[in-house]
Amino acid sequence: MDNPFFKNHGPVLIKDLLKDLKLTNIDEFNNDSIDDVKDLVSAKKNHLTFFHSKKYESLASKTKASYCITLKNLASYLPKECKKIIVDNVLLAIANVTSKFYPEAINDYFDNTVKKIDELKLVNKVKHGCNVLIGENVKIGSNCSIGHNSIIEKNVIIGSHCSIGSNVIIRNTIIDDNVVILDGCIIGKKGFGFFPNNSKNLRYPHIGIVIIGKNSEIGCGSTIDRGSMSNTIIGNNTFLDNQIHVAHNNKIGDNCIIAGQVGMAGSSTLGNNVMIGGQAGISGHLKVGNNVQIGGGSGVIKDIPDNTKVMGYPSKDIRQFLKDNK
Amino acid sequence: MDNPFFKNHGPVLIKDLLKDLKLTNIDEFNNDSIDDVKDLVSAKKNHLTFFHSKKYESLASKTKASYCITLKNLASYLPKECKKIIVDNVLLAIANVTSKFYPEAINDYFDNTVKKIDELKLVNKVKHGCNVLIGENVKIGSNCSIGHNSIIEKNVIIGSHCSIGSNVIIRNTIIDDNVVILDGCIIGKKGFGFFPNNSKNLRYPHIGIVIIGKNSEIGCGSTIDRGSMSNTIIGNNTFLDNQIHVAHNNKIGDNCIIAGQVGMAGSSTLGNNVMIGGQAGISGHLKVGNNVQIGGGSGVIKDIPDNTKVMGYPSKDIRQFLKDNK
Amino acid sequence: MDNPFFKNHGPVLIKDLLKDLKLTNIDEFNNDSIDDVKDLVSAKKNHLTFFHSKKYESLASKTKASYCITLKNLASYLPKECKKIIVDNVLLAIANVTSKFYPEAINDYFDNTVKKIDELKLVNKVKHGCNVLIGENVKIGSNCSIGHNSIIEKNVIIGSHCSIGSNVIIRNTIIDDNVVILDGCIIGKKGFGFFPNNSKNLRYPHIGIVIIGKNSEIGCGSTIDRGSMSNTIIGNNTFLDNQIHVAHNNKIGDNCIIAGQVGMAGSSTLGNNVMIGGQAGISGHLKVGNNVQIGGGSGVIKDIPDNTKVMGYPSKDIRQFLKDNK
Repeated sequence: MDNPFFKNHGPVLIKDLLKDLKLTNIDEFNNDSIDDVKDLVSAKKNHLTFFHSKKYESLASKTKASYCITLKNLASYLPKECKKIIVDNVLLAIANVTSKFYPEAINDYFDNTVKKIDELKLVNKVKHGCNVLIGENVKIGSNCSIGHNSIIEKNVIIGSHCSIGSNVIIRNTIIDDNVVILDGCIIGKKGFGFFPNNSKNLRYPHIGIVIIGKNSEIGCGSTIDRGSMSNTIIGNNTFLDNQIHVAHNNKIGDNCIIAGQVGMAGSSTLGNNVMIGGQAGISGHLKVGNNVQIGGGSGVIKDIPDNTKVMGYPSKDIRQFLKDNK
Repeated sequence: MDNPFFKNHGPVLIKDLLKDLKLTNIDEFNNDSIDDVKDLVSAKKNHLTFFHSKKYESLASKTKASYCITLKNLASYLPKECKKIIVDNVLLAIANVTSKFYPEAINDYFDNTVKKIDELKLVNKVKHGCNVLIGENVKIGSNCSIGHNSIIEKNVIIGSHCSIGSNVIIRNTIIDDNVVILDGCIIGKKGFGFFPNNSKNLRYPHIGIVIIGKNSEIGCGSTIDRGSMSNTIIGNNTFLDNQIHVAHNNKIGDNCIIAGQVGMAGSSTLGNNVMIGGQAGISGHLKVGNNVQIGGGSGVIKDIPDNTKVMGYPSKDIRQFLKDNK
Repeated sequence: MDNPFFKNHGPVLIKDLLKDLKLTNIDEFNNDSIDDVKDLVSAKKNHLTFFHSKKYESLASKTKASYCITLKNLASYLPKECKKIIVDNVLLAIANVTSKFYPEAINDYFDNTVKKIDELKLVNKVKHGCNVLIGENVKIGSNCSIGHNSIIEKNVIIGSHCSIGSNVIIRNTIIDDNVVILDGCIIGKKGFGFFPNNSKNLRYPHIGIVIIGKNSEIGCGSTIDRGSMSNTIIGNNTFLDNQIHVAHNNKIGDNCIIAGQVGMAGSSTLGNNVMIGGQAGISGHLKVGNNVQIGGGSGVIKDIPDNTKVMGYPSKDIRQFLKDNK
């Protein structure tokens, strides 16, 4: 996972990392220290990862992480050389641990590092409207425009030939060349991820970012949340209409066309050349293949293979849907 | 009902109040005067209330109002000592009458009392972004932050340790401690309530407010409308995701979790610990119990008892839904 | 079609217009020149139109256009005196041609002609909030108000007695008298219309505008896109609730009531006195009659005759829906 923006406060001694988790076997881990927290795929030596659902067993079996927080019944899927940390609630434990590496990624207070664009010496000249604010660590390519009242908070990279509309808010996001962000979008805020807890829910850090590929367009009033442990990705030449909600960790492929008011719950994957009709919803943790067409208003609650057309709630083969509703 | 914000132009002589309604029995009411207009539950002596549907018969039978606007066939449910005002259209009559008490609550013109936050002497120091505007009669607790371009219009009370994002607009709202309002929310505007009327609809006053309990969070781009005759309430530790619409008079309990793009039509009640999946819709005037789970995309059109899981459009028991759609 | 805003770069020699289309019969057209591009109904002598679906055969048979881009199998429906330009992809060809007449209507860069309202000498005094921006060619009637941070970009006409909220963005729009636009609306941006093209989609010009009739109201956070070849129209005394999306070319009649989060895909028509419940969706290119009621959450995928009540996904007669779901 690319993670250029959030400061890693590691390395951290594994003992210190785990002391809040009330583990009984903490002594097994000696004085090892951990450099970072990563997902199963990106984790390397001296990293800690997590594995909480059998769904990810094939990824787990290949992880290169030195440590993995997991459940007792999943431990055997992990490589032998990966040290297991057995807990009752994997996600709660990883949230606790990640907070220690990335304490700044828990809340989304407004960025008070911003300055008026005219007060900055940007490398490239930006055509801009009134009252445009730019935060620290923002890079903007050549030939871009930013509309009135827009706020590019800290940790944003914008490519060349991009057009950002008015009343837009962006943070923790990398945008490739030739992208159009229309008015009123909010991109890169933390996802809707937390642990329910009576009287006071526990938020977890969102250390992922949003990545938007070249030639793409995001419609007015859309919201794209950044990822928790992985990134939220919009592919190349993918067009989103107005009022779309893309939750944390979703990955959308190239050349997709997504109509108005579509919503995607977290951590799903869309292939390339996917077309989605207005107001359709995609549940979390699903895999939608390449060249899939999803009819307007559909509710997708299971994986969809490549080259299929579905419609309905729950969605089914479109011929079946039309036959059932003749 | 708490109603600290709208100026009550009463007391009003009942004769003057009713003269537009073309009643035949207006002489019965002598020279009585009315202090306020309230719903069945909050109304007290010298108040006027209204009763328009048999659904509310048990509340009607216990009202303490001195007067009640109602239908002929509902009058007998009201206490003997409550004087009945029989009309053909209860809601139209109460709108007319309420307008006389609260003429400022009909329209939502922008607040021209606002000043730049730096020009004000607030009791507590507020960490704030650029271009923040604050209206009259606004109170903000300690340790709060307000993002760029946000407008806190008149009649807002914000507790301590609250974070308000950027591009937010709030009016007629009471927010408890430790609440997070994310970017782009619009809270406290009048509800979508009016009487259809050929060529020119008749708006009615919205004298309710929005109340948001402690530790709650409202996601980006959400809209929460204030109530008409009662308040719109979000409970404690209730989290709303992005692009949610909560219409007027809804009451949401504590510890609820509501996913993206959910919509609630007016005057419904959610219990505590309710979970709602993305894009679900709740019709108006319904009662959803405690510990209810509503699947994503569901359309709820009738009451749901405590401790049930539903899904579908219209929603039904989730086991039945899954069985029907195998 | 009214089209007062976009500069027509015509007349253009038909030869020059068609040279990118690789036609074989281009010599047939001599040195004729074309004044404008219009839809089948509005086109007159020396105009070019297009006809791409048998659905429009009766309109095609009556067009007054001198030229029409069409398919080989549709040509015979057109009047004899209309010269046919046969192509493989009508919409792609018309987009190409329209771009030559209206190159400014392809993209929606922010309007850099705007000035602070206090710096302008408007004919009528406007009650306004802080940071209001007004573009070129904007006319505002008497007794209007515009809230904080709102941007009225170029090419907007606002009638008298209108209230525009805060954080609103409007362009390419004509608004009649006594209209209320609530906070956060985005009105008049280009529709979601383009030709999918691997690696780089081809946008087409949107030369239509948005027209909003008198006494209407648009709820918070709604988006209304301008038309491509025709206008997007909201009738008189039609009320829209919050978070509604009206895509390009839709025509909504008078006295309609549309609840929160409803979405309309492009080019559909609603009659007068239509009521739509929350979250319902209307597919593209449909005709919904007068006095129609559409239940909340419905998905309308075919035409609906006058005086009917429907509900469901796909929508059906409401009695049938309720019977099927007992």
